[in-house]
Amino acid sequence: MPLAEFALISRFFAPLATDSGALSLTDDACLIEENATCDLAVTTDALIEGVHFLNRDPANLIARKALRVNLSDLAAKGARPLGYLLALALPRQVDEAWLEAFAAGLADDQRTFAISLLGGDTTATPGPVTLAVTAMGRVPRGAMIRRSGARPGEAVFVSGTIGDAGSGLELIKDEAGEGPEAQFLVGRYRLPTPRLGLGVALRGAATAAIDVSDGLLADLGHIAEVSEVRISIDAERVPLSGALRGLRGSGLDTIVRAATAGDDYEIAFTAASERDALEAGLRAGVPVTRIGRVESGKGAVMIDAAGREIPISRPGYSHF
Amino acid sequence: MPLAEFALISRFFAPLATDSGALSLTDDACLIEENATCDLAVTTDALIEGVHFLNRDPANLIARKALRVNLSDLAAKGARPLGYLLALALPRQVDEAWLEAFAAGLADDQRTFAISLLGGDTTATPGPVTLAVTAMGRVPRGAMIRRSGARPGEAVFVSGTIGDAGSGLELIKDEAGEGPEAQFLVGRYRLPTPRLGLGVALRGAATAAIDVSDGLLADLGHIAEVSEVRISIDAERVPLSGALRGLRGSGLDTIVRAATAGDDYEIAFTAASERDALEAGLRAGVPVTRIGRVESGKGAVMIDAAGREIPISRPGYSHF
Repeated sequence: MPLAEFALISRFFAPLATDSGALSLTDDACLIEENATCDLAVTTDALIEGVHFLNRDPANLIARKALRVNLSDLAAKGARPLGYLLALALPRQVDEAWLEAFAAGLADDQRTFAISLLGGDTTATPGPVTLAVTAMGRVPRGAMIRRSGARPGEAVFVSGTIGDAGSGLELIKDEAGEGPEAQFLVGRYRLPTPRLGLGVALRGAATAAIDVSDGLLADLGHIAEVSEVRISIDAERVPLSGALRGLRGSGLDTIVRAATAGDDYEIAFTAASERDALEAGLRAGVPVTRIGRVESGKGAVMIDAAGREIPISRPGYSHF
Repeated sequence: MPLAEFALISRFFAPLATDSGALSLTDDACLIEENATCDLAVTTDALIEGVHFLNRDPANLIARKALRVNLSDLAAKGARPLGYLLALALPRQVDEAWLEAFAAGLADDQRTFAISLLGGDTTATPGPVTLAVTAMGRVPRGAMIRRSGARPGEAVFVSGTIGDAGSGLELIKDEAGEGPEAQFLVGRYRLPTPRLGLGVALRGAATAAIDVSDGLLADLGHIAEVSEVRISIDAERVPLSGALRGLRGSGLDTIVRAATAGDDYEIAFTAASERDALEAGLRAGVPVTRIGRVESGKGAVMIDAAGREIPISRPGYSHF
């Protein structure tokens, strides 16, 4: 597969997005106009054993993560989720205990997020466990937060802390998940928290938003590309958890790794008013940190304390 | 995998369908109430290389079939499609030529059916090519045709001809696809025609409908189960194409194989008025044949010319 996902999408699939609601495939969700007061946001994400989760991961966590990464897309759009469809391809060796745990995970998260399974398809596969979740949510008419609204002069923010999930995945791979700090980081990888309350609070306050799945810099790069702006991040402002600082220190190397690792599922966004942005965080009960600014130009970059651009070899994670 | 799909759904997934729009997962699509005049029907179906299509099938046909089986679900609900989302998992050996043909197939069918790609997700997989399409369509408020509306005394109908696709698949497996009749049957397997016009025409006329994907008898069995009725099919009324009769004859063995083979993607439905049913077919330009009746009781059965129930060992195709 010589093509990266974005090249592949723009070359082969973007020309197929002829409806305006597809947003040229440049956003986390498409938009269906429902009525005079409401739009429907719809998003789909696939998770594959061996790529997005490990064969030995507990089935209930696989189910919840599949649901949560889709809810996270809705959160970044300011949508309130209503339900989801599930296409599930299962190898023959999957047994009833696995299915029971998988369904129990879905049931737990349905209660947590007040959503329902709406439909689905179950089939056998000669390959790995493969799930595609399609999640739907509602947003007031015209209030969906897009990737395209960032303007020079605005500030850039991110919720929660960055780099925990990437570090958690490293710990799992190194079989070094012992101790409370390591367990916190592994937990952040295994079970992200979609920032749904924050997304709703950001309606009208955020000019552009994205959930951090590929990596903070890579995802802000997507906003920069679609908004046709440059985004500058101050490295020392990137919020790191106590657990990450405890295990990895808070040097520039840790910050660069944090900002280029994926799977945090925090919301990165731009806003014209810092006060509105921070108040949205307060209302949602989620810490929000100002990390940079929107400028004229192209791309997303990280700046050190001396104001120099930090060279980054790989801004984020790609499954290709 | 010891469980059949239906057992699996009812045991593990039906309890998760807490929203009334999920229709308890007993239908081809879920229902989202949009506004005072319109409902949204949403359906998802996965297709997997080695299960639903063959590695050597042309990529443009794989794309079109994936789209069409989902459109067929919307057709059976009386919905007019508006667009679809695509989750696509690709093995690394897939090359640009394959992708180009795949996208061209989607583009062709988007034009044919006046729909747009609305969103999607593309990822790598260590397994076979796996696609999940989520299709959305609109239907006037309350007009969606369900599986649950069949009542004793009504007649049973099917569009087009039955058994062509199953026979086409056999011909492919036997590498015996030569001659015009064989090519017709293979074409019916490779590229089904979703009966969208008929579905729209059947709004208000059909009391229950389903698209024939598992097999005529199996799919009518789904209507019988959800409607809590018995459905009786007269074997000699099952419509067979000239090509199928030419290659396989029109004996009872051919009829039984036709009624228990999958992938026809015709619409089987029940209606209180034979005249309304046939007129809907005329309006849509699709032949509609009366094949049986709805009775009190359980299950779907086929009756021979002497009125005896024909023993069927396997009413349809299951991918498990």
